[in-house]
Amino acid sequence: MPLATRGAVKGLQSEEVGALGFELILANTFHLLLAPGPELVEEAGGLHQLMRWPRAIVSDSGGFQIFSMGHGTVADEIKGRGARGRRTSTEAGGALLAIEEEGVRFRSYVDGRERFLRPESSMAVQAKLGSDIALAFDECTPYHATREYTARSAQRTHRWLERCLRWHAHHGPREQALYGIVQGGVYDDLRSESAQTVAASPCDGIAIGGSLGADKQQMREVVAFTIREVARHAPERPRHLLGIGDVDDLITGVQLGVDTFDCAIPTRLGRHGVALVPDPEARWRMDLAKGRFSRAPEPILDGCGCPACAGRYSRAYLHYLLRAGELTAVRLLTLHNLNFIARLMDDLRESIKAGTLADATAALRAGAAPEALRSYFE
Amino acid sequence: MPLATRGAVKGLQSEEVGALGFELILANTFHLLLAPGPELVEEAGGLHQLMRWPRAIVSDSGGFQIFSMGHGTVADEIKGRGARGRRTSTEAGGALLAIEEEGVRFRSYVDGRERFLRPESSMAVQAKLGSDIALAFDECTPYHATREYTARSAQRTHRWLERCLRWHAHHGPREQALYGIVQGGVYDDLRSESAQTVAASPCDGIAIGGSLGADKQQMREVVAFTIREVARHAPERPRHLLGIGDVDDLITGVQLGVDTFDCAIPTRLGRHGVALVPDPEARWRMDLAKGRFSRAPEPILDGCGCPACAGRYSRAYLHYLLRAGELTAVRLLTLHNLNFIARLMDDLRESIKAGTLADATAALRAGAAPEALRSYFE
Repeated sequence: MPLATRGAVKGLQSEEVGALGFELILANTFHLLLAPGPELVEEAGGLHQLMRWPRAIVSDSGGFQIFSMGHGTVADEIKGRGARGRRTSTEAGGALLAIEEEGVRFRSYVDGRERFLRPESSMAVQAKLGSDIALAFDECTPYHATREYTARSAQRTHRWLERCLRWHAHHGPREQALYGIVQGGVYDDLRSESAQTVAASPCDGIAIGGSLGADKQQMREVVAFTIREVARHAPERPRHLLGIGDVDDLITGVQLGVDTFDCAIPTRLGRHGVALVPDPEARWRMDLAKGRFSRAPEPILDGCGCPACAGRYSRAYLHYLLRAGELTAVRLLTLHNLNFIARLMDDLRESIKAGTLADATAALRAGAAPEALRSYFE
Repeated sequence: MPLATRGAVKGLQSEEVGALGFELILANTFHLLLAPGPELVEEAGGLHQLMRWPRAIVSDSGGFQIFSMGHGTVADEIKGRGARGRRTSTEAGGALLAIEEEGVRFRSYVDGRERFLRPESSMAVQAKLGSDIALAFDECTPYHATREYTARSAQRTHRWLERCLRWHAHHGPREQALYGIVQGGVYDDLRSESAQTVAASPCDGIAIGGSLGADKQQMREVVAFTIREVARHAPERPRHLLGIGDVDDLITGVQLGVDTFDCAIPTRLGRHGVALVPDPEARWRMDLAKGRFSRAPEPILDGCGCPACAGRYSRAYLHYLLRAGELTAVRLLTLHNLNFIARLMDDLRESIKAGTLADATAALRAGAAPEALRSYFE
């Protein structure tokens, strides 16, 4: 699912996201809480109505962004990237002030005011947003957290899940599903305990959050182990992997039994001039800002049905527009990247139905373009 | 015609501009000369091919932007706005170094290098761009120029026109038209002399450039006088009014006999959160960043067929997205504004054919929405 972080997939209209075939988007409760605020969204008839998106919306709990302000950039930590304590630009003005049993105190990056978010208020905000799937309020523990901290935090997350479920049962929109989140960092016993606890709750689906390790190998092991535990204790419930979306990680995730993913990667890469292409050696990335594309007449990817490729916009043109800072390039790359991911997932979904997942993943890993890429827009 | 300043209508794909019904766009020779450079555009098969725009392209001569660096912001001067000597942000790093009989020396804002543009090289660049209509190289004199300077400048512009025509006759693309430009500032005798000189040349069309006065009243007088002179001496040739595009100025211009216009206003206003609406009292502008729109559930303009209004995106949503700095809002407003202008021109065009121009302009000036607004996308 693409990110509609602040209630819009960056640079696109909702109907364009629908035209790409996506059935879910993820919106960030943290950002929408601060602006425009849940009351205004509710008054507008909910987030579907406000952003004119008729399909499903997943809202996160708000926790991830708040904890990022205290733990450094959790996204970087989870993926084993870079500097501890670094903050993302959007959170530069905000701060995590205190983590308490009751909830979390933080400073708003919008107006500098002190705010408090607790499981119940996270649920209340998500109810006002009117999302189809709400996520339970959790602490997203980073890679550098100790085992002891990770254990205590996971237990608090479990108590918060209970409070979320209780609030939701009494006040939540009847048609809204609620997913619990498995924490436990890179520790098998903690992941196992967390998976059992979440599976024992009456949540509608199960998301896997927190640190998945220092590198892709460890991530694969942590996800594999956690999914096995989830599948053992709640075989029928849908499984979501939070914040993961590199092409190879999506392939791995599907092989391991993940049902849904959300990630900023396709849209963020697009804004930075990087196109997704079937090139595993280059991590499926083509950086169109590089000088070698300045005279390249071909589109990003021959046979691709996205507006950029089907429109025959050349790599040279995109390169030039990126260098010139023209929004048109950002948009074309965003559309291409989202289409690439949507078609990749089409391929994987179809191969599961056909019983050919192993072949499909092997082909994709060997650099095959998703077959659906060719046919979708025809 | 919308501006494709650097070879893209900001934030849009070419096919979207076509879908709005525009048949011409204007690209800036100055910007394209500096990057990506005429050789690269030519190698790509010309600007039509590079930007995937199959309809007509007008290229300006490059002079306007160069003279802006010396005369201050010519656009402001022409329209009687504000500070002399102010520079636009894109030109902040550039500078006009010298105006000579041979041409103009300036410093590139891209790489700081000294460059020289003369009538012949402007034509050569426009030939490489492969535009359908090229504009002759002229000096765009600002409002604060003296009568004496304006007269000398206009005479040099006429000599430059001859050189442009000579180069174009020998080397220009056969299918490319060349427009001469009438200068002369706010002085009737200079405008008359310029109109006669340009009309006496074998140029294919006539553009009106330079200062049109300190306010709309004077602009109306200068344009009316100049058009009469042009019509007297070259009744059959198309007339273009350079850089004008406020809604009331378009209506006035059409009444006075202008055929085509180019202007940054619809796209630039969109980027700044301002929507065009049929509200003459508010200069046809609705500033959606204003607080009073924060809870407004209606679209920008009921009955409007643009993607923003037909998609039922509310003013409240656009207000919020603008405040949050989301590109989606900029895009929706750009599409709305360009559609508004395209439909306004449809109305005026149809009313000319029907012999009801006076009624149409009176209705539009009284705040009627363009009728074409309702039907175009149906």
